[in-house]
Amino acid sequence: MQIQINPKSIAAGTISAREALRESQVQGDAPACRHVFLRRFDAAADATAQAVDRARDAGLPLPVLAGVPISIKDLFDVAGQPTTAGSRSLADAPPAVRDSTAVARLRAAGAVLVGHTNLTEFAFSGVGINPHHGTPRNPCSVAEALIPGGSSSGAAVSVATGASWAALGSDTGGSIRIPAALQGLVGFKNTQRLTPLEGCIPLSPTLDTTCAITRSVGDAVLVHGILSARLPQPLRRPLRALRLGVPSTLMLDALAPDVAAAFDSALRRLAAAGAQIETLPLPALTDMAGLQAQGGFAAAEAWAWHRQRLATREADYDPRVAMRIKRGAAISAADYLDLQQARRSWIERVELAVQGFDALLSPTVPITAPPLAPLLHDDDAFFATNALLLRNPSVINLLDGCALSLPCQAPGTLPVGLMVWAPALCDDAVLGVGLAIEAVLAGA
Amino acid sequence: MQIQINPKSIAAGTISAREALRESQVQGDAPACRHVFLRRFDAAADATAQAVDRARDAGLPLPVLAGVPISIKDLFDVAGQPTTAGSRSLADAPPAVRDSTAVARLRAAGAVLVGHTNLTEFAFSGVGINPHHGTPRNPCSVAEALIPGGSSSGAAVSVATGASWAALGSDTGGSIRIPAALQGLVGFKNTQRLTPLEGCIPLSPTLDTTCAITRSVGDAVLVHGILSARLPQPLRRPLRALRLGVPSTLMLDALAPDVAAAFDSALRRLAAAGAQIETLPLPALTDMAGLQAQGGFAAAEAWAWHRQRLATREADYDPRVAMRIKRGAAISAADYLDLQQARRSWIERVELAVQGFDALLSPTVPITAPPLAPLLHDDDAFFATNALLLRNPSVINLLDGCALSLPCQAPGTLPVGLMVWAPALCDDAVLGVGLAIEAVLAGA
Repeated sequence: MQIQINPKSIAAGTISAREALRESQVQGDAPACRHVFLRRFDAAADATAQAVDRARDAGLPLPVLAGVPISIKDLFDVAGQPTTAGSRSLADAPPAVRDSTAVARLRAAGAVLVGHTNLTEFAFSGVGINPHHGTPRNPCSVAEALIPGGSSSGAAVSVATGASWAALGSDTGGSIRIPAALQGLVGFKNTQRLTPLEGCIPLSPTLDTTCAITRSVGDAVLVHGILSARLPQPLRRPLRALRLGVPSTLMLDALAPDVAAAFDSALRRLAAAGAQIETLPLPALTDMAGLQAQGGFAAAEAWAWHRQRLATREADYDPRVAMRIKRGAAISAADYLDLQQARRSWIERVELAVQGFDALLSPTVPITAPPLAPLLHDDDAFFATNALLLRNPSVINLLDGCALSLPCQAPGTLPVGLMVWAPALCDDAVLGVGLAIEAVLAGA
Repeated sequence: MQIQINPKSIAAGTISAREALRESQVQGDAPACRHVFLRRFDAAADATAQAVDRARDAGLPLPVLAGVPISIKDLFDVAGQPTTAGSRSLADAPPAVRDSTAVARLRAAGAVLVGHTNLTEFAFSGVGINPHHGTPRNPCSVAEALIPGGSSSGAAVSVATGASWAALGSDTGGSIRIPAALQGLVGFKNTQRLTPLEGCIPLSPTLDTTCAITRSVGDAVLVHGILSARLPQPLRRPLRALRLGVPSTLMLDALAPDVAAAFDSALRRLAAAGAQIETLPLPALTDMAGLQAQGGFAAAEAWAWHRQRLATREADYDPRVAMRIKRGAAISAADYLDLQQARRSWIERVELAVQGFDALLSPTVPITAPPLAPLLHDDDAFFATNALLLRNPSVINLLDGCALSLPCQAPGTLPVGLMVWAPALCDDAVLGVGLAIEAVLAGA
């Protein structure tokens, strides 16, 4: 039986911080974690864990995350470590002088930072393939190598394997929720402005969101409280008092049969538990394609950040990532300003259409994790899969909204994510609805 | 002797709102106001003035600006009137359905809105020439036609001639302060975020500021309170307790002798009154040119707004304005994003350099109003003059700061503006310093 590592067990002394770290390191060394860590912070982690244990032994009050192992996506600065965004083009990056704000908040909350996790280079795809460092394998299938999902590929595997209790990551178009969905974990993308981006290598400053992957919605609430430096107050209403909407436009298109079955089954169980669930059209979602036509905010903003580096070091980039970034070169300032304006008006239309619902429900992604091998070298297959993975999650980034992905598959089948989402600043409603849904699905 | 029209005289019944409006209309009809009003709101103004008088006669409490005539730059929507930005390309604009927020605030404060004033087409130059509607003449010279300054050309003349007590306008690179300086008036450009832009035709949403021209700093405080819907608390400190900086970089370059003499004389009088005045270098100001190289925010953002209209109606544009707008077509999204980043870092450097000063002092513009005729058809002379007029005021827009221009010339000479300025949100300090300076200069 796996040792229970969590803030309570460590605070209670059921397990020491050093034991928790040792367990995390054993998992991190195991074959399931191959390609997951780009660098480990073993020495610093040992020191932190010892300090937590000494503080507990001395009867001192412990901060909220004291002693829990947390992994850091290799986009976030950790003082004394380089940040390389999983790219060979940053292999010579100097050590960061200070922690990113998110890392500093986790550290101040007592977390033991175990290492920098692998990702899609510069966080620019949802598949999770990294040609420089190898691709972490999805731990949900032993038989065949399946994609981990991305861009926070290593982050999710670190949580799924027990190498960390939670994983810090980022979500620009689904990068937290896609790997969470494909690996049976919880990914919460909060409203962007609630968490800090300082000290994080940007992909798209308009859309990038600092957030985390956890094993449960309760853990997501805890970590979100630390990352946002606030006290979340999840909506506490019984399921029968909730009005939940299921948008029929776009989000239910081309569902794989196993995803459709798991999603329908989840809706039936929620309805049986008393939730009021209504299908609604959301025609504004068909305008997404137009808003993304030239590559959208990510292409424009990534090109601005990368163009000088690409000029001299393109050979050190993943060609698929370089190709996506270079689409931004064709975007004019006026196109960009029009895009901002179009986004504002689109957000207004979507917010109006979903008024009156406590939250919306959609499949996080329309497929379960596909095999990795066919996507390694076939660009057409890769980009088609990538588009499918990003389709639903990216709606919420464009909306400036918040979304929680939690598992809803039947036991023994590949993970399927149920996405609970809402417009900007409805984070506590989404977390509360997520807690209620999790309780129903777990009790089934 | 001119009748004193101001909120106090009307509230006290020294003059009725109808008499004040009649006086405003007489001035508006006089030759000095030729080309000043693009449309008058006589019928509505009469009704408002009557209502104010009836309220006062009935002993009802009057709002702050009850009965004072205020003119509106033809960029701001007034319900029932078209808004044409002084452009033939908008000659067929439909009447506005509702007031812009700034106009609504003035109206709610009891102001009598007298008409839409002329401007540089789309507010895009500091000279004030308008080829469609004619150019208002600077009322400070009878002998020779001098430029009024712009873009709020008609706004300033309406105040200078007594056709209005105050004038609503906008300031993107000096459009309030330049005509105020060239006509011996007070122009206060507050920190952008303090006043509303809704219902105002944009030039550059990053830089545009809703603000006003008045005859005195006290009036500027009053109108700013209404436009910002807050109660300004101007810094009340004696001059001898103030530390004022005079940046020697850029802002003192190429001063005309009469401007240099007036500025130096003002500094001497302030020093004699006890102010601590220190010259400081501000090397960051030499980087302005780089930030504006491609036309800056105004070109990029104006092109986004105008490009569709220009495609079909360029013949209805002032060619000089069209030329400036079209520079924005060459700006890429990445250039624009780099510009935003460069601005942020530039603001940090300037704010650091001016820390510890209560306000900075500079000549608003380095010249007095030049003759109009040579600029009408000579593009080189026009653009050189325009650049000179915008040079100092536009520093404060790029800084996201606040600035007050008040007259400092010797009696009987052409007006010279003294600009009191500071970084963002130091508005109450700037207004307070302005009140103290005005008292000293008036008492000389």
